[in-house]
Amino acid sequence: MRIEVIATGDELCLGEIVDTNSAFLAQSLGARGLGIARITVVGDGRDEIAAAIRAALERSQVVLVTGGLGPTEDDLTREALADVLGVALQHRPEAEAAIVERLRRPLSEQNRRQTRAPAGATLLANAVGTAPGIRAVRNGASVYVMPGVPHEMRAMFTHHVLPRIIAGRPDGDAFSAVRYLVVHGVPESQLAAKLSGIASAAPEASQSVTVGTRVRSGTIVVRVRTGAPETQTAERLAAAAADEIRSRLGESIAGEGDHGIAYFAARAALDRGLTMAVAESCTGGLVAAGLVRVPGVSASLLESVVAYSNDSKVRRLGVDPGLIERHGAVSAEVARAMAEGVRKASGADIAASVTGIAGPGGGSDQKPVGLAYVASSSRLGTDVVERRFSGERPTVMERAAEATLWMLLREARRKEVRATDTVF
Amino acid sequence: MRIEVIATGDELCLGEIVDTNSAFLAQSLGARGLGIARITVVGDGRDEIAAAIRAALERSQVVLVTGGLGPTEDDLTREALADVLGVALQHRPEAEAAIVERLRRPLSEQNRRQTRAPAGATLLANAVGTAPGIRAVRNGASVYVMPGVPHEMRAMFTHHVLPRIIAGRPDGDAFSAVRYLVVHGVPESQLAAKLSGIASAAPEASQSVTVGTRVRSGTIVVRVRTGAPETQTAERLAAAAADEIRSRLGESIAGEGDHGIAYFAARAALDRGLTMAVAESCTGGLVAAGLVRVPGVSASLLESVVAYSNDSKVRRLGVDPGLIERHGAVSAEVARAMAEGVRKASGADIAASVTGIAGPGGGSDQKPVGLAYVASSSRLGTDVVERRFSGERPTVMERAAEATLWMLLREARRKEVRATDTVF
Repeated sequence: MRIEVIATGDELCLGEIVDTNSAFLAQSLGARGLGIARITVVGDGRDEIAAAIRAALERSQVVLVTGGLGPTEDDLTREALADVLGVALQHRPEAEAAIVERLRRPLSEQNRRQTRAPAGATLLANAVGTAPGIRAVRNGASVYVMPGVPHEMRAMFTHHVLPRIIAGRPDGDAFSAVRYLVVHGVPESQLAAKLSGIASAAPEASQSVTVGTRVRSGTIVVRVRTGAPETQTAERLAAAAADEIRSRLGESIAGEGDHGIAYFAARAALDRGLTMAVAESCTGGLVAAGLVRVPGVSASLLESVVAYSNDSKVRRLGVDPGLIERHGAVSAEVARAMAEGVRKASGADIAASVTGIAGPGGGSDQKPVGLAYVASSSRLGTDVVERRFSGERPTVMERAAEATLWMLLREARRKEVRATDTVF
Repeated sequence: MRIEVIATGDELCLGEIVDTNSAFLAQSLGARGLGIARITVVGDGRDEIAAAIRAALERSQVVLVTGGLGPTEDDLTREALADVLGVALQHRPEAEAAIVERLRRPLSEQNRRQTRAPAGATLLANAVGTAPGIRAVRNGASVYVMPGVPHEMRAMFTHHVLPRIIAGRPDGDAFSAVRYLVVHGVPESQLAAKLSGIASAAPEASQSVTVGTRVRSGTIVVRVRTGAPETQTAERLAAAAADEIRSRLGESIAGEGDHGIAYFAARAALDRGLTMAVAESCTGGLVAAGLVRVPGVSASLLESVVAYSNDSKVRRLGVDPGLIERHGAVSAEVARAMAEGVRKASGADIAASVTGIAGPGGGSDQKPVGLAYVASSSRLGTDVVERRFSGERPTVMERAAEATLWMLLREARRKEVRATDTVF
């Protein structure tokens, strides 16, 4: 089954936003062993959208379109789809009823546009917004049009589109499985050598095992993809390859699954029943925000203090002002005092801290932009590391946050080791 | 001049990374009044890449291809381009010399692939990597192939591709100008009515004014794009349209330029010499992280306390435990106490706070997932608003952060008004 995506919107063609909708669709389908053959991004022009849909329907069995269902006059995907199908747009009373129910007021002239759909098309419910989605069939190929607003698109795809795609999957298709392992602290060139041979481990000609890597901040995501005539075989091959990678890389693996380090750090603390606290400076809250994205983390995370000013470091974290004066706010000594300070004040089992120079200003010969000190602390002691990150301000912030989360993850694991030690 | 982009790579079709290269190209071209008509994303397959290049060359005068120039066997853009041109790949001694110079070692078998280019093509120097770029012409249309590694692509595009595109721009082309205004708190359908007529305000047939909107969390970005035979006229039309929108929307405008609310809040505080502090719960640090992304904000932002546990709210922010017991941690009363608490403890001029239920757990009939209370505080008093956000946990976090930044921005503006009041 060949699947294509068409993302519409001038904001994409102007580079104002990156196309996260298509990435979400690719991930969701990939997790079910379905790939996307092509993504086409076009502006808001009716003819351009129609041409893209027409061409995709000729090549593929499933075409997923996002965007252009809003209430304004530059939302023209409905019109473009009607052009492709060679039918007129019709007012749909059930769409009007759903929109009125949602808005709790009579329909405006603008929203009236959203009640229209090509004749003969099926409407798809929008649980979190006004615009209904549209499904139409042409020469045996299906086209699904969904809103461009990410959370509306995600809900509609998950509940109303994906089940239909899976139900329509042909019997003869090869199945595939995907596994991800997240690796930290191993350079990409060394990693390639350590992974050699795994990709050619498929025992039969009808089977395949491929290994890909992708760098994300200071982390590398290893992707194992397998193919086989049955889904169980594909899953088994993927599990075996993941086991082999785990045995080769050991402690450098943050975890399995396409998650960030924050997810693995939060999981490690939650699974071990540890409480956490964070003290941040140059990352401005990104360390805590990463942890808070993980549902249920309130059982572990007590607080994060974004102590941006020196006064806040002293007052909130008990950092000795003399330390800041002697070594500077960006120093190993202050990072250590921040981690220990937030751990003691909060009573958390483990804590991490980071202080650095995100740039573009504030650097010097001794302490250049990108320099950061990261610390982790528990009752067993405090570790501090010095790191240097390149890139612009947001990149330095993200890489420093990732390094801090890695220290927190290591600290959470270390606790487990020590606890076992005491048993014997 | 019609321009298209083709981005290649399995990692894009699998949704493992979002396509930031195409966004960069669109921004760079847009800043020079050039638009991108279409972006096509394909995997690493030679035939799929060739088909995409062939189709784009038939529609457009300039085709920009990124990715697939690496040293490994799944890098097949060179081969695909040769297929399209109907010529063979040839070894290019000047490419070999450049790669050896860069690597400072004899060529490996893998790097040897990077010395090949379609017969008759022009090589483009790569100042920061090994793979040279390629330029070829077919029926008067130009195709440029650049590496997929973002910093290599950016350098090559800026120095070797963009100047050629600009030099090849036909004389008759219209120039365009773009302006952005960021609006908060106005529903999209109401906004459309308020903007009516602006798009048709172009006084002459050779001129155009278009208005587009894009929703980003609780915020709408209004884009004014104008076209005219000369760049000054396009700029003037855009300025006039922006003035008109500003006069119609007044206080609902966060600012001008394609920035987030965090940027405008930080700028407002910095411009007025105000210090800020934040107390966050469900947003987990996103409010502060948004502010910290703005360079120079250390002159204004003192601290943010991510008081995730009740104990932290009491200990760090001085929230009365009785308030939490009577009203719950997610309540107007606690939001008020958090904002006042962090303002007093830090000594900041203005403060904002947020407490809410990000989900998926933790909701109830009285307090559903998505409920949040947002407060802002200054010596003039404290305001609290109740908000309800839909979407999944990360979406609720982002929308709650945006609402908090908006309260902070309003508070920063309000100070200015009051200060003027005292003068008279």
